[in-house]
Amino acid sequence: MQRHTGRDMWDVEECQSPRMGSVILGVDGGASNTVCVCIPAAMPFNDPLPVLSRTVAGCSNHNSVGEDRARETLERVMSQALLKARRRRSNVCAVCLAVAGVNHPIDQQRMLDWLRDIFPSHVKLFVENDAVAALASGTMGKLHGCVLIAGTGTIAYGFTSDGREARAAGAGPVLGDWGSGYGISAQALTAVVRAYDGRGPETALTNNILDFLGLASPDELIGWTYEDQSWARIADLLPVVVESAESGDEVANKILHNSVGELASSVKAVVQRLDLGGEDGKHPFPLVMVGKVLEANKRWDIGNEVIDCVTKNYPGAYPIHPKVEPAVGAALLAWNAIASELDGDIRTVQ
Amino acid sequence: MQRHTGRDMWDVEECQSPRMGSVILGVDGGASNTVCVCIPAAMPFNDPLPVLSRTVAGCSNHNSVGEDRARETLERVMSQALLKARRRRSNVCAVCLAVAGVNHPIDQQRMLDWLRDIFPSHVKLFVENDAVAALASGTMGKLHGCVLIAGTGTIAYGFTSDGREARAAGAGPVLGDWGSGYGISAQALTAVVRAYDGRGPETALTNNILDFLGLASPDELIGWTYEDQSWARIADLLPVVVESAESGDEVANKILHNSVGELASSVKAVVQRLDLGGEDGKHPFPLVMVGKVLEANKRWDIGNEVIDCVTKNYPGAYPIHPKVEPAVGAALLAWNAIASELDGDIRTVQ
Repeated sequence: MQRHTGRDMWDVEECQSPRMGSVILGVDGGASNTVCVCIPAAMPFNDPLPVLSRTVAGCSNHNSVGEDRARETLERVMSQALLKARRRRSNVCAVCLAVAGVNHPIDQQRMLDWLRDIFPSHVKLFVENDAVAALASGTMGKLHGCVLIAGTGTIAYGFTSDGREARAAGAGPVLGDWGSGYGISAQALTAVVRAYDGRGPETALTNNILDFLGLASPDELIGWTYEDQSWARIADLLPVVVESAESGDEVANKILHNSVGELASSVKAVVQRLDLGGEDGKHPFPLVMVGKVLEANKRWDIGNEVIDCVTKNYPGAYPIHPKVEPAVGAALLAWNAIASELDGDIRTVQ
Repeated sequence: MQRHTGRDMWDVEECQSPRMGSVILGVDGGASNTVCVCIPAAMPFNDPLPVLSRTVAGCSNHNSVGEDRARETLERVMSQALLKARRRRSNVCAVCLAVAGVNHPIDQQRMLDWLRDIFPSHVKLFVENDAVAALASGTMGKLHGCVLIAGTGTIAYGFTSDGREARAAGAGPVLGDWGSGYGISAQALTAVVRAYDGRGPETALTNNILDFLGLASPDELIGWTYEDQSWARIADLLPVVVESAESGDEVANKILHNSVGELASSVKAVVQRLDLGGEDGKHPFPLVMVGKVLEANKRWDIGNEVIDCVTKNYPGAYPIHPKVEPAVGAALLAWNAIASELDGDIRTVQ
C-alpha cells in the first residue's frame, strides 16, 4: 500500500485556484467508511443544501484500524474534498470530525491536537462521536434531543440545549449492543444452531439463512462465521430475518420484538438521564432515527415500534428521519456553532 | 518464522534408537494450545497411566489459524513427542487426533488423508473433535455417554455404545455459546455497560471488573475490548464474576444461573437425541465434566448445579471428573478401538 504522509497529502493545494470564499468540512467516520463534505460557510438555508464536494474513504475508527491509519484516512478524505471543491486549507473556517471510536475525552483531545497541526489557529475545530453528526443531520446542526442509530451497530446519543450530553450502548457486540443489525443477525444464527442441536424450537430462519448463504447444513455455519467475523458481514443477514418474521416465523418475530425493546431502552436511558422530556415527560424534543434497522419493511417497521415504545413514556418525543447524510450533519453542527457564536458577539456588542 | 516442511520435521528419526515397542499418539488440539502424549500400545492399566512423553504447541484449530499452520503445528507436536519418547514413526501403531474445528465429515476426511501421507498404511488413524478426547479421558477411552466441556468455549458431545453421536453448542459466541467462560464474562461486561448507561441495575461487577483490569471508568471498557477480542482474554474475567456472585451480587448470580441453564440444556439436548437415558430416563450413562467453568469455587459450583439440573430429567447420569488430560483420552480412545478390534478378531476366530 502506498503511504501518504501529511505533507504529501496537502501538496495538492499548490496547484489550486486562489481564495474563493470560506468553507466548512464535515466528516462522518462510521463503522465501514468515512464521508467528507465541503459546504460554503456563508450558507443560505436552501433545500437541497449546497454541498460543494463529497469524498469517501475506508474506515477511520481508530479502535478498528489503529491510530495511524485512521488519521491518514481522515486527512486524505478532507484533502480530497477540498481539492474537489477547488478550495485550500486557508479557505476553511471550521471542521467537524464525527468519528466512531471517539468514546472518551482523551480520544477527543488527541484528535483535536492532531487537527490543530493541520489547520491554522483561526479554524474552529470540533471532534465528536459519529452519533453526534447523525443527530445534527436531523436537527440542522442544533445539538438538542436524542438520536438513535441502528445499522450494523447501535447507539443512542442525546444533548440538552445547555450542552449536557449522554449516551447508551454503542459499545460493540461483546458489550451487548443487541438491538443492532449485528445483534439481530447473530441472534438469528444462534436460533438456527439451537434448533439444529435440539435446544430450541424449529424456525423458518434455518432454510432462509442457509439459502441466502448458499450453505447445505447448519454445521457449515460454524465455518462460515469463522471465515470472517466482521460485524457488517453478519449484519447483512438482517433482511432475511425481517422477511422470515413477515412470513410469520415466531422465532424471527421474537428476535425483532427483543430488538425493539433493546433499542427503546437505549433511547429511554438517554432521555431519562438528560431529563429531555421534562418533569411530566411531555416536553417536546427531537428523536432522530438513523440506520437500516429503523427503516420500514413490508409489514415490520422496527423504527416505528421503537417510537411507539418511547412515546408511551415520553409523548413529547417527535421523530425525525433526516433528509441529509450524517457528514452534512457534521458540517451543519460546525456551521451552527459558528452562527451561534456570531449571534452571541452581535448581542454582546448591542 | 522458520517454516518446517513435513520432510524436515521427520528427519529427526534418522538419529534415533532402533525399534523399542509399539506406541500410540494421542493429540488434543484445543482453542489455545495443542498437547500430544505418547503411550505404550501394550499398556497395562496402571494408575497413574504410563505416559512416555508429552509435548505442547500452539493452537491447531484450522478455523482459527488456517489449514497450513494447523497441520504444521500438529506434525511438529507429534514428531517431538516421538523424539522425546525415543521412538520413530515405524513404532506407531495408532494415532488419534482430537482437534477443535473438526465439525463436519469433510474436515475429518481431509485430516485423515493428510495423516495417511505421514504414517504407514498399517497405522490406525482416528480424527475427532477435541470434545471426543475429553469424553474418552473420563471413560478410559470408551466412547459412550456425554461430555460437557465449559472452558473458554463450551460444547456437549455424546456417543451411544453402537456408535451414534450427537453434539450441542460448540459453535462460538456468534452462534450463541452463552454458558461458556467467554459467555459468562461477556454478559458481565454487558451488565457493567448497562448499569453505566442507565439501562440496567447497579452491580458490584462494575468495581470488581474495573479493579481487575486496572481501568478507571466503564467508558474505557470499549477500548479494552477492541484492543484484542480473543475469546480467552474475555473469558479470563470468569473468577471475578464468580467472586462477585459469591459476595452476593444479584446481577452476577443471575448470569451464573443463566450459564447453568445453558450448559444443562446442551447436555439434555444431546442425551435426548441419543436416548442415553433409555425410555424412563433412568438408564445409567457417564456424564464427563471438563473445564474451568465446571470447577467448584468457594460457594458457587456451576458444575454441580448443572449435574443437579440434568439428573432431574436423567437420574441415570453419573458424573465423572477425569483424572487424566484430554490428550491421554485421545490416546486411550485409539487404544480402546484397537483392543476392541483385537477382541472382535479373537471372538471371530473362536
